[in-house]
Amino acid sequence: MPKPVPTQKLIDGLLKGDRLALARAISRVEDDAEEAARLVQAVFAHTGKAHLIGITGAPGTGKSTLVSALVESFRARGLSVGVLAVDPTSPFSGGALLGDRVRMTGHSGDAGVFIRSMATRSGAGGLARASADAMLLLDAAGFERILVETVGAGQAEVEIASVADTVVVVEAPGLGDEVQAIKAGLLEIADIFAVNKADRKGAARTVAALEMMLETGSAAAQTILHHGQQMEAGAAASEAEAAGGWAVPVLQTVAVSGGGVGELRDALEGHRAWLGGSGALAAREKKRLDHMLQTLVQAELLARMERALSPDLRRDLVERMQRREIDPYSAVSRIMEGN
Amino acid sequence: MPKPVPTQKLIDGLLKGDRLALARAISRVEDDAEEAARLVQAVFAHTGKAHLIGITGAPGTGKSTLVSALVESFRARGLSVGVLAVDPTSPFSGGALLGDRVRMTGHSGDAGVFIRSMATRSGAGGLARASADAMLLLDAAGFERILVETVGAGQAEVEIASVADTVVVVEAPGLGDEVQAIKAGLLEIADIFAVNKADRKGAARTVAALEMMLETGSAAAQTILHHGQQMEAGAAASEAEAAGGWAVPVLQTVAVSGGGVGELRDALEGHRAWLGGSGALAAREKKRLDHMLQTLVQAELLARMERALSPDLRRDLVERMQRREIDPYSAVSRIMEGN
Repeated sequence: MPKPVPTQKLIDGLLKGDRLALARAISRVEDDAEEAARLVQAVFAHTGKAHLIGITGAPGTGKSTLVSALVESFRARGLSVGVLAVDPTSPFSGGALLGDRVRMTGHSGDAGVFIRSMATRSGAGGLARASADAMLLLDAAGFERILVETVGAGQAEVEIASVADTVVVVEAPGLGDEVQAIKAGLLEIADIFAVNKADRKGAARTVAALEMMLETGSAAAQTILHHGQQMEAGAAASEAEAAGGWAVPVLQTVAVSGGGVGELRDALEGHRAWLGGSGALAAREKKRLDHMLQTLVQAELLARMERALSPDLRRDLVERMQRREIDPYSAVSRIMEGN
Repeated sequence: MPKPVPTQKLIDGLLKGDRLALARAISRVEDDAEEAARLVQAVFAHTGKAHLIGITGAPGTGKSTLVSALVESFRARGLSVGVLAVDPTSPFSGGALLGDRVRMTGHSGDAGVFIRSMATRSGAGGLARASADAMLLLDAAGFERILVETVGAGQAEVEIASVADTVVVVEAPGLGDEVQAIKAGLLEIADIFAVNKADRKGAARTVAALEMMLETGSAAAQTILHHGQQMEAGAAASEAEAAGGWAVPVLQTVAVSGGGVGELRDALEGHRAWLGGSGALAAREKKRLDHMLQTLVQAELLARMERALSPDLRRDLVERMQRREIDPYSAVSRIMEGN
């Protein structure tokens, strides 16, 4: 086997924007928490420049196609883009899927685009840590826009709000009676809604329902969808804007043809400008770093527990508890002694 | 305010079976993890005698009424019974609900019965710890049968398998097309099925579906329910019995009239005898104590994290991270230094 590339060489390479060094560094971050610590420690001072964009939504909304169209749109403006596709539901898929994805999206020959799939290698906690680390590496490598797409459903989708500056929630008409975002608790985290597949029947209803929900802040607007009735909306958005807040826009896109994607890109740039001007950017970064700190402390405590509670000690203590020679709380004290 | 009763007095009282001392000790176990440790340390040597029975099932199956009928049935045999009703979904309800419950069940004048509601006071983790501790206190106080009823749905219902010797899963006909236990993942943890409200339409189908599922170990038997077809079942149960294992019985009860409740009590006594004879009792206790040990270690680590990560230190570190003066991994090392 060839010798592994020294960590310092990877660090030097990725800070110069070397794609191979970056790819290898991300692999190490996935494989090994200690190596992740070394890499992040070395590059952290070079982070904080990229616009971190989270893209989420239910399966079937066409998220991946929209991400690909967005990449093209950013490239047309000369901006470099890193993409992380995070899938907490599927086991680690290696490089094959990634290769397919790159070919499929047609960005394979472009040095200003870096696309990477991240999947479960060591549990959901490990994936969250590795994804956050990979974002820092892309940022340090100089990518100006970083798109993080979560595949699958549930907690991971809501978690995206903890790692991004701007969250896009993708909807699509015809996925059933309900707006998917409500079910998933995504209404609260959206900075921008994109109703994709907007050329399909029911798109206007989905848009109206979302606008109504943003206005009322409740799920009462579900009635729109159920009764096919269209109501005036958008008033609340204007009010929020007038008050200096961010009015969450509901945009329509047709990712396969690129329709509306320029407007989505402009909305993203607009949100970034608003974040910077309002002080919200620093506030979100602070929240993000705080979240990262907590996550890492928890991971460290878990690792310590695994070290402290060796299988032998555990078996011995349980047997003594069963003989009533020691009580559970004293057993815990015994475990904690060396820690 | 009156002085609190000294812990030692509570311990002496509950070991003699004093109900007031027991009630106060359970309250302390709910309120205060350190006090819980002192109480459990003192009484643990006196535990391990009671039969710990978990009773779970979907809302609407009549669990509470069945528990009350079971209490009566055990009392008719001269056995003392402690009941814990654990509700992870509702906030702490104090003594009022408890009082109602005792009156409602008609056991209020009986010294051989102790009924207690446990509800969320300090998060789901705290409730699990407090409930496990309360079971130990009831055991040490001399109650011969301890019924733990989980109210609500989800993780807590499956968790009951970690704290009981015997698990009863309660079903009822007419709660929809599907047998609720499959959805909730309860099939695997049931030692006994009780199809309650067995005088209602559809009870025979529910029984047949459960027996079929036990036989095939899969959800394929859902077809019975959907097609109204009744198939031969019970063959697998006899086979398991012949092989020396436990054949999970599917019993029918009508808790409101007491119908079938004697048979359920006999099945519980039968399972206890089987556990003792087969060595499964010791194996389950070992698993339970191991689970308790892990839970307590995790709680201790969490408490340490909260101590280690003071609001001031956390704010300071996040601000320094934001200024890129320190990286996240080095911040974690800083937090862990004193621990």
